[in-house]
Amino acid sequence: MSQTSQATIGDSEFDRDTAVTRREEGVYDADLSAGWTIISAVNGGYLLAILGRALADALPHDDPFTISAHYLTASVPGPAVVRTDVVRTGRSLSTGQASLFQYDEEGREVERIRVLASYGDLDALPDDVRTTAKPPAMPPIEQCFGRHDAPGPTPGTAAVPGSSAITERLMVKLDPATLGWALGSPSGKGEMRAWFGLADGRDADPFSLLLAVDALPPTAFEMGISGWVPTVELTVHIRCRPAPGPLRVSITTRNLAGGYLEEDAEVWDSADRLVAQSRQLARVRLAG
Amino acid sequence: MSQTSQATIGDSEFDRDTAVTRREEGVYDADLSAGWTIISAVNGGYLLAILGRALADALPHDDPFTISAHYLTASVPGPAVVRTDVVRTGRSLSTGQASLFQYDEEGREVERIRVLASYGDLDALPDDVRTTAKPPAMPPIEQCFGRHDAPGPTPGTAAVPGSSAITERLMVKLDPATLGWALGSPSGKGEMRAWFGLADGRDADPFSLLLAVDALPPTAFEMGISGWVPTVELTVHIRCRPAPGPLRVSITTRNLAGGYLEEDAEVWDSADRLVAQSRQLARVRLAG
Repeated sequence: MSQTSQATIGDSEFDRDTAVTRREEGVYDADLSAGWTIISAVNGGYLLAILGRALADALPHDDPFTISAHYLTASVPGPAVVRTDVVRTGRSLSTGQASLFQYDEEGREVERIRVLASYGDLDALPDDVRTTAKPPAMPPIEQCFGRHDAPGPTPGTAAVPGSSAITERLMVKLDPATLGWALGSPSGKGEMRAWFGLADGRDADPFSLLLAVDALPPTAFEMGISGWVPTVELTVHIRCRPAPGPLRVSITTRNLAGGYLEEDAEVWDSADRLVAQSRQLARVRLAG
Repeated sequence: MSQTSQATIGDSEFDRDTAVTRREEGVYDADLSAGWTIISAVNGGYLLAILGRALADALPHDDPFTISAHYLTASVPGPAVVRTDVVRTGRSLSTGQASLFQYDEEGREVERIRVLASYGDLDALPDDVRTTAKPPAMPPIEQCFGRHDAPGPTPGTAAVPGSSAITERLMVKLDPATLGWALGSPSGKGEMRAWFGLADGRDADPFSLLLAVDALPPTAFEMGISGWVPTVELTVHIRCRPAPGPLRVSITTRNLAGGYLEEDAEVWDSADRLVAQSRQLARVRLAG
């Protein structure tokens, strides 16, 4: 992450890889980049950013306030199409629906994700803040660990250590207190915390926040579970436009039961504001 | 709440008032009862239960696992139609979409709510529980306060004290620690806790849990805000079939900012299991 080559919002790898091209009214072509995969699966937050950008074009408002995604089938790198539907437009909020499709061997569309979202204008919100939420207690970024700090396995980013292209595109510095899983001794607590940014130095915006909530290693790793934890549903609330600088992301799981768990994420910006909250329901698929 | 006349699941006021009648494949008629209103607005959790029952009929699975609702326009008592769409069916999960419409003066359909939901079979889940979540600390039900316990204003149920028909249909006994708002001295904390049930003694099931998460007074009251707090989006995860007996509902707001707040609800059953989690994004409309 070199400051001299810092990418900007609108002109970065993330912007290029989440771009959508309008084919006709409400229909957008996209290309799912192989650069945002965990093993072979395309990251769910990256996909949500693509859907979010299509809806920002289709709706009269630009900023996702609340977006709920149901993940249907696993996405793969390659062409995709996003079909949007304007559900309601209002003065301060608009609601839309979008689906991301890919193609089967016969060229038929296969639905990957469907979302419902309400959009508004973050800059038009009053600046009142009456919050009791506090930023996560975690060490300064210099004392946290990324993929370049580890000799052995690759902590630092999403899902299973190792062969994930997404790790090269993210700056993830994990709180040592939630790093036990990478060293063979998970804490047993459903917690994961990290400093987060894009590797090319692009600052955060509402769309990269959709990625941020789903880009850390699963809390399940710290609970001693090494299997796959596919998302069933993910809802993100964007509460504030993030200030420049690295984000802090804190993820908590309190209830692992019946083969499912929730992951609650909070994202804090450099101005100590809670910029995003999310919750997902995920299935626990035990390994081996 | 008389034990001698206890209503049963499937044969209670809640079941009758959330019933849907299949008009054709995927389309259901409903009648929004005036009995579940807060002032003149129909309760959002009651509406979600109607949508939930329509989807249970339309999908191959019976139980809502995760359901996300975007509230578009205010519902009123009277006829409604629910249009459903099966998005994907799988072995253990199915996903569907549903919209609730009412009619304008010219008889045209006006969309009130749109939902995306994934359904499964709660009884088929393994019984593993590895949770760190603890039931809310609150006094026994005998030491909590409902609408029959107050000489003056009517705590006990949803929204503004007074003329709300829904209060007669619910058993809500508020934790005295979150009752300050009703006595003119709100605690300033974004917390609301209560014992909860249906007034006719019907036990809880997944559909009444959809009501339970949205039936307490708004946390905003305890934050000293007496205005209206309309829901923009509400997502509920049903994690377990509830055991018979009263529920405990705990709602927390941590971040009131920019004119919006989140309400996080937890619902615990009499067997001390976390049976539902929800989060909603609501707007704060200041009174006067």
